[in-house]
Amino acid sequence: MDKVTKRLLVGVDLGGTYIKSALVSDEGQIMGRYSVATDAQAGVEAVLDKIREAVERVKTEHVVGIGVGAPGLVDPGTGDVYDLTNFPGWKHVTLAATLRDEFGLPVFADNDGNVMALAECLWGAGRGANSLLGITLGTGVGGGLVLSQQPYQPEGVSAVEIGHIVVQHGGAPCACGGKGCLERLVGNKFIVERFLQRVDRGEKTQVLNRVSGDRGKITPEILSMAADEGDRLAEEIWRETGEYLGSALVTVINLLAPEVIAIGGGVAKAGEKLFSPIRHWVQSYAMSALSQRVSIVPAVLGNDAGVIGAASLAKQRLL
Amino acid sequence: MDKVTKRLLVGVDLGGTYIKSALVSDEGQIMGRYSVATDAQAGVEAVLDKIREAVERVKTEHVVGIGVGAPGLVDPGTGDVYDLTNFPGWKHVTLAATLRDEFGLPVFADNDGNVMALAECLWGAGRGANSLLGITLGTGVGGGLVLSQQPYQPEGVSAVEIGHIVVQHGGAPCACGGKGCLERLVGNKFIVERFLQRVDRGEKTQVLNRVSGDRGKITPEILSMAADEGDRLAEEIWRETGEYLGSALVTVINLLAPEVIAIGGGVAKAGEKLFSPIRHWVQSYAMSALSQRVSIVPAVLGNDAGVIGAASLAKQRLL
Repeated sequence: MDKVTKRLLVGVDLGGTYIKSALVSDEGQIMGRYSVATDAQAGVEAVLDKIREAVERVKTEHVVGIGVGAPGLVDPGTGDVYDLTNFPGWKHVTLAATLRDEFGLPVFADNDGNVMALAECLWGAGRGANSLLGITLGTGVGGGLVLSQQPYQPEGVSAVEIGHIVVQHGGAPCACGGKGCLERLVGNKFIVERFLQRVDRGEKTQVLNRVSGDRGKITPEILSMAADEGDRLAEEIWRETGEYLGSALVTVINLLAPEVIAIGGGVAKAGEKLFSPIRHWVQSYAMSALSQRVSIVPAVLGNDAGVIGAASLAKQRLL
Repeated sequence: MDKVTKRLLVGVDLGGTYIKSALVSDEGQIMGRYSVATDAQAGVEAVLDKIREAVERVKTEHVVGIGVGAPGLVDPGTGDVYDLTNFPGWKHVTLAATLRDEFGLPVFADNDGNVMALAECLWGAGRGANSLLGITLGTGVGGGLVLSQQPYQPEGVSAVEIGHIVVQHGGAPCACGGKGCLERLVGNKFIVERFLQRVDRGEKTQVLNRVSGDRGKITPEILSMAADEGDRLAEEIWRETGEYLGSALVTVINLLAPEVIAIGGGVAKAGEKLFSPIRHWVQSYAMSALSQRVSIVPAVLGNDAGVIGAASLAKQRLL
């Protein structure tokens, strides 16, 4: 511990749109940051150049290690990247080794869901917890799992696939090939789809007025505003969304008993009208000895979770 | 490792009906065994006496440690027992410490589902695997989880509650307080209940003749024999049972990507008519990169899993 105390780390969040980097203290504080457009289509070397640039811009002489979170299959042992979603050509890139040679510093890499969950566990919603499930709600439903303060990552697998917990046996087909997956029920467009199905069944709502009748313009944000203004159907959809999430969390709680579940991403901005039914469902239907131990809370680090988590990964691995 | 090689261990399986003990080699071989009726109603001291007897009868001078698997909440760090299902009075018993003082040997204890899964992972269906989910199908649906060859047990929790994975959001109420749990669909009596519901809907079967019309005599064993003789409804029930298990396993696979899933217990004796639909469902609906890695196999250690696992726990902890 002492060797790294007061030393600094660089965290890199390799995203499909932006590469973000930050200079991070060993207590998870951001001391400086940089971001640059990714342009993944330009190929592996061009992206590597951007990563180098992002590290260079925040690095100081006190930096003792570099961590990278990447959106796909990463071997956390070697820091090799095997496959990145929406990054053409990343089929086996020795990312950590390449940066290590370049900067003469230890470099570590892991899946971005894992590093974000690590950040929330150590410095965010879970501060001090031993175990945390992180969930990001958006177009997809992703996340990461931290057990004993370490990212859980079985060999050859990118991260826990929270979005593909089965909620409805034999339910609607999911893009993953499964049936009745959580993501098929609470992913962005499926929240809207469930709303429109009920509109088509004749349920009343003010939401269509709000979008001048253009159904394609309806988003979870619009349904959130409508619910805040008392639209009953929109309220119902959020309650139902919370209950589906609740069932998935009952499964995780009965199975793994995490201390904290931290939920972030755009859809989580709906706030209490989402969190309240989630908590109510879990308190009602998870095994009571387990539901009493778990905190279900909003993620707090937002877009910083990626860089803080990547830096924390480096710190952990250096100890 | 060397210190323990060729040394022997005692494993104790504390069950509600029998206390079983065995002398076990450090490679999981049983060298001697003993069993005695438990009589849990006689109270804590009486059961402790039986445990002492069970250890004494198999112990030799070459024994270097003792392991115990117990059906409830055990702190694997201290070996204290906090609550045992169907054992009156076991509210905080310093089981491992008591036996340690008595025998002058290191003693370790854990939940029985965990030690059985450990036995299958190290010496049984998973031999050589890093991670294994063990499932026992019977009146209840229990089991244990081994990750990185260690039993997974979060603080204050007995073991993973496989039986209370949610399979049907908002489904039938389960004894645990949940809804649509796996156990509520594939526990012994619920397999029979699903069968009778379909009989009541007018589906044809020869099973009622087999029990002379006495519905109370129908068991999963009888439905298994009937299916083997070509009874279509009984076959259907087994297919459906496999599919419900399949959905629960899809969830576990997408979440944790275990290498091996070992299924034992009375209901698993149905064999291929259960395993075949389980595997088919998993291959169809789990994420393909994950379903390709997992083996779904019968547990092989049967009633010996408890004592072998308890001994293995002791061996692991001594290293």
